Amino acid sequence: MEETFVPFEGIKNDLKARLKCYKQDWTGGFSAGLRILAPTTYIFFASAIPVISFGEQLERDTDGVLTAVQTLASTALCGIIHSIIGGQPLLILGVAEPTVLMYTFMFKFAKDKPELGAKLFLAWSGWVCVWTAILLFFLAILGACSIINRFTRVAGELFGMLIAMLFMQQAIKGLVDEFRAPQRENLKQTEFLPPWRFANGMFALVLSFGLLLTGLKSRKARSWRYGSGMIRGLIADYGVPLMVLIWTGVSYIPSHSVPHGIPRRLFSPNPWSPGAYDNWTVIKDMLEVPILYIIGAFIPATMIAVLYYFDHSVASQLAQQKEFNLRKPPSFHYDLLLLGFLTLLCGLLGIPPSNGVIPQSPMHTKSLATLKHQLLRSRLVATARRSMGKNASLGQLYGNMQESYQQMQTPLIYQDASARGLKDLKDSTIQLASSMGNIDAPVDETVFDIEKEIDDLLPVEVKEQRLSNLLQSTMVGCCVAAMPLLKMIPTSVLWGYFAFMAIESLPGNQFWERILLLFTAPSRRYKVLEEYHATFVETVPFKTIATFTIFQTAYLLTCFGITWVPLAGVLFPLLIMLLVPVRQYLLPKFFKGAHLQDLDAAEYEEAPALPFNLACQGGETGPFAESGEIMDEIVTRSRGEIRRVCSPKVTSSTSTPLKDSKSFQSPRHMDKAFSPRVSELRGEQSPQLGGRGPLSPRTGEARPSQLGKGTPDSTSK
Amino acid sequence: MEETFVPFEGIKNDLKARLKCYKQDWTGGFSAGLRILAPTTYIFFASAIPVISFGEQLERDTDGVLTAVQTLASTALCGIIHSIIGGQPLLILGVAEPTVLMYTFMFKFAKDKPELGAKLFLAWSGWVCVWTAILLFFLAILGACSIINRFTRVAGELFGMLIAMLFMQQAIKGLVDEFRAPQRENLKQTEFLPPWRFANGMFALVLSFGLLLTGLKSRKARSWRYGSGMIRGLIADYGVPLMVLIWTGVSYIPSHSVPHGIPRRLFSPNPWSPGAYDNWTVIKDMLEVPILYIIGAFIPATMIAVLYYFDHSVASQLAQQKEFNLRKPPSFHYDLLLLGFLTLLCGLLGIPPSNGVIPQSPMHTKSLATLKHQLLRSRLVATARRSMGKNASLGQLYGNMQESYQQMQTPLIYQDASARGLKDLKDSTIQLASSMGNIDAPVDETVFDIEKEIDDLLPVEVKEQRLSNLLQSTMVGCCVAAMPLLKMIPTSVLWGYFAFMAIESLPGNQFWERILLLFTAPSRRYKVLEEYHATFVETVPFKTIATFTIFQTAYLLTCFGITWVPLAGVLFPLLIMLLVPVRQYLLPKFFKGAHLQDLDAAEYEEAPALPFNLACQGGETGPFAESGEIMDEIVTRSRGEIRRVCSPKVTSSTSTPLKDSKSFQSPRHMDKAFSPRVSELRGEQSPQLGGRGPLSPRTGEARPSQLGKGTPDSTSK
Repeated sequence: MEETFVPFEGIKNDLKARLKCYKQDWTGGFSAGLRILAPTTYIFFASAIPVISFGEQLERDTDGVLTAVQTLASTALCGIIHSIIGGQPLLILGVAEPTVLMYTFMFKFAKDKPELGAKLFLAWSGWVCVWTAILLFFLAILGACSIINRFTRVAGELFGMLIAMLFMQQAIKGLVDEFRAPQRENLKQTEFLPPWRFANGMFALVLSFGLLLTGLKSRKARSWRYGSGMIRGLIADYGVPLMVLIWTGVSYIPSHSVPHGIPRRLFSPNPWSPGAYDNWTVIKDMLEVPILYIIGAFIPATMIAVLYYFDHSVASQLAQQKEFNLRKPPSFHYDLLLLGFLTLLCGLLGIPPSNGVIPQSPMHTKSLATLKHQLLRSRLVATARRSMGKNASLGQLYGNMQESYQQMQTPLIYQDASARGLKDLKDSTIQLASSMGNIDAPVDETVFDIEKEIDDLLPVEVKEQRLSNLLQSTMVGCCVAAMPLLKMIPTSVLWGYFAFMAIESLPGNQFWERILLLFTAPSRRYKVLEEYHATFVETVPFKTIATFTIFQTAYLLTCFGITWVPLAGVLFPLLIMLLVPVRQYLLPKFFKGAHLQDLDAAEYEEAPALPFNLACQGGETGPFAESGEIMDEIVTRSRGEIRRVCSPKVTSSTSTPLKDSKSFQSPRHMDKAFSPRVSELRGEQSPQLGGRGPLSPRTGEARPSQLGKGTPDSTSK
Repeated sequence: MEETFVPFEGIKNDLKARLKCYKQDWTGGFSAGLRILAPTTYIFFASAIPVISFGEQLERDTDGVLTAVQTLASTALCGIIHSIIGGQPLLILGVAEPTVLMYTFMFKFAKDKPELGAKLFLAWSGWVCVWTAILLFFLAILGACSIINRFTRVAGELFGMLIAMLFMQQAIKGLVDEFRAPQRENLKQTEFLPPWRFANGMFALVLSFGLLLTGLKSRKARSWRYGSGMIRGLIADYGVPLMVLIWTGVSYIPSHSVPHGIPRRLFSPNPWSPGAYDNWTVIKDMLEVPILYIIGAFIPATMIAVLYYFDHSVASQLAQQKEFNLRKPPSFHYDLLLLGFLTLLCGLLGIPPSNGVIPQSPMHTKSLATLKHQLLRSRLVATARRSMGKNASLGQLYGNMQESYQQMQTPLIYQDASARGLKDLKDSTIQLASSMGNIDAPVDETVFDIEKEIDDLLPVEVKEQRLSNLLQSTMVGCCVAAMPLLKMIPTSVLWGYFAFMAIESLPGNQFWERILLLFTAPSRRYKVLEEYHATFVETVPFKTIATFTIFQTAYLLTCFGITWVPLAGVLFPLLIMLLVPVRQYLLPKFFKGAHLQDLDAAEYEEAPALPFNLACQGGETGPFAESGEIMDEIVTRSRGEIRRVCSPKVTSSTSTPLKDSKSFQSPRHMDKAFSPRVSELRGEQSPQLGGRGPLSPRTGEARPSQLGKGTPDSTSK
């Protein structure tokens, strides 16, 4: 995106681009049919559960002025509006931890002021929202988001890791509290006597770890070996909600032998209980706020504005990472503008505003990538089966599959990408046939193992549409009504789910991958190379990777430390924004440009002269190779099957597919091919590496990894 | 072993054969150095922990006449004697569940008889042991063990599974009891009040599952990616004892906030507490037993004799399965004779006798296989390093490695086996060098990746010696003194350990593998073929495998049901022995001979005319291929690294090693090669399979699996 600071320019561009595909956003959603429910429920739980427990937190800290009812209402309201008129429908909105902290602080401040007090708190916070909205309008109109491309991987992923740490911290804190007697409770009750407190804590351990472990297992169900494909699919798609249900059920098993309060469950007023609606009429109190405080509200407003500007943009950015090969344009400016309106709305309604959330937004995109994969897959499999039924030759088979592949594409598809996908398909099938020596004969299972072939050939694509987002926010809305049901969920299951979310958000985060690489025994590094891996593993010396990662970790821990400081804590995003100048001006002094590119690609540093770098961007040049690798990094661990997606892509763009694929897939040769790389990782010089750099004498375009794989065969010829 | 029923013949043969290698049994043990401690501790825990909890069981059921002190004493005594003068030192002795059941029944019987009563129970049981001993003498002398080869895989593995089920049942029962108030306890104590009982149960869940999960993980440590090789090795070797310590430690964390009895811990008298020694002087009471009861003692004696005859032999057999490529002879007759003496001894000392135990005995052999692997490995790696240091060429390198490999061999080694191992080594290194195009140049890491190469080339061998057995039984003896320490272990950790043992005993049990295969989705069966697998998967039609397995499962469940019948329960081994005639006369009526051979190889059915069947026996013909596969089945899941052992062996005996290894290791080609096999599994006919049967036109000796791997290349030439 070019940096335009002309007022309204950014918003205009966003609107124009998004309007082009608005219709398709809906048709695409509905065309997915029932399958859309899988990502929907997945994200619904991911956004509802934290919002509920944030609501509980607010209730404790604001003496019950704000409860889960309000947080849920805000999340649902903003979510529905954004999913319908918002720019980027992949972005998930919700009441986030920073907002909660901010509101808590504001309440503590207002409570002690005689002119405000708890009574006028909501009215005053309404004014804060008004100011925040105004600031957001300015930022959006003046095109502040143009510098979004300054937020490189290093900043985004660090933020992601930080959020993961906060979630994990919440989970641990929650579990520890299960052993303690809660405040503001009547400690005379049986369930708070020492023995029952201990029992409750132990029970909580069982429930939360139960949910965490089973939840993580269920996500991998697709790659299980047992059970029919459909069951495996169902478990993988709905496993987590299912586990929440199951473990909630388990929590009722001993109910006859334990007092009512064991295990502790969600505590929140029903929406129809008296007082739960005071906030909706806050607008008429707003004028009672003394003018001084109306102006003073500007100070917290600036903080929140900065917070939202960053949160919202980064969440949106992480949901649109290049690895996903999104076909539809982003919409940062317009979304920020809309966020302004939403904040205003929430303020006037007396509910805490929502903004783009992490890790839910990237999780949303991931789940939609799986969906798209399944859709394409089943479609192509069907086609292949049909044409085989008609004893079609490979040529026809290929034709038919090309056809249906095209049909499934969005109008905005990169032409060359699709072309490549099909070339791929053709290459391998033909090559395969020739290797079996019956090119014109009718195809049968032995020549063309449908399931596997197609899995191997599908590119990484995302089902971009608005339906899943609309549905999930509507479901969040329903939670308000379903409060009595939600109250059956034990808090310990909640903590388990927090831990689950923290862990789910790690795979694909290259920062995390690099930390793991640091702890990998040198003798085992070749294993990283055997699997699919990001480019830097091969192109950047280990020492550099280590330095970079350690620096990033230190920075992360600083940010984490900041969050513990009572007030400043809310401003940790500022610290992360500080990374932008650091990345742009400081880091280049310490790291080689090419290395920095591979570790933390920044568009503004790109030079078209280096095609292999472009390739790393997963842009037009080589969406498959890269997308393959990183999509794998991103998705595999949570979706067993997608791993397959990339294998052929990695080798697809090299000159001799047959040889190459062979040598690539032969572990033995691979080790040989990689042994120099390994030694390189160790920082030694390896004889073989003589004339080889990123830019190779043989094929300028091919990336080192592919060269690496190409080597043994070319030598053994 | 030839079937000789000439009196004393069997015993004489055993003694002659074992005496040949007696010296080496000790030298070999000491030559292993400190490493011997890994299998020792592993087995020590595996045999001590069940014996202790059986002791507790006995104490409850015999009103404290027999306690853990006696069971431990018996296990230690018999173990030490057997390890020194016993025939097969791989066999682990211990007080087993059946013995406990038998003694419980005998006590119930004696208690109600006025002439005996609890007072004379031990004396009477002494007489039972006398009779048992006499019977065992007869069996041993008359060569009853000659029919041991009638106990085929089907019987042995069924027995193994049954024991696993019993262990698992014990674990579950134990866990459930943690929620209940124990009998014979003063229920007034705080820890038995409902809240604390519940708390105790939950705590027990945490501890036992904690131990189970961490224990299983730690066994796989060798294949972890993180941490140095040494640490990984330590964890894999000592992980389980370590976990027992850790979780015992964890059980003390909340000790300040819970009453003394939470969690429940081992309960057993100290050996020096009054009355713990009554039993040692039982011999002088034996003549007070009325003559009628002395004669009547013959009836239980027959049961026990049958039980021990079967248990002891099968345990010994499972510890010497063909897959282990043992180099030293078995000793069934002599060991049975010795068991007679041991039973007599225990009877006169008034302690329950020990016999060969499952799964400890096979576990012992497995752990020694890993030990041997490590020893060979480190030795060869050192040699290779040295010669590389001297810039040796591949020729010299190979020479040196051959030398040190020979040095490590026991004198009784199969010559051809070693030859093959080395041929292997040579082949691959040379072939490798040529592929790198520098045959005479000094070798360096890039050509010869020591660690991997050697891992790939080592055959499966077992460190057969007496030291580990002697040490572990001595340690069991020390437990009697260490009782106060043992009492710190929570019972829940015990239950976790029981579950761990049950699960550890499954991998490598083909019966279990086949059950899994039944539950494998048809579309996933090719995955089984991609991994290392027993022959039957490829040579036997799926329908047949299914029928055979279902029959076996039904039989297993019947046996399991029997164990629940109060008295008859003790005789479940009879039911399993019934399998011998069933297998020999009934099954051949329902299954094809060749299929039966692959599913359940029986020596007495072998026909040298079928080389590929011999190969399945893992005998001289192709010890590596088979051993590779099955050893993998056996060991991998608990020892990540050994998996590698087999990969080259599988392909070693085919004509074109280079091509073959390539195609074997290329997943894509493999799938192609296997797709016909898969369809075969599905029971369909696949066109490709035309001229191909077990006996192939191309290479008579090569087994289908190898042919399968050979195919694609030969066609794509």
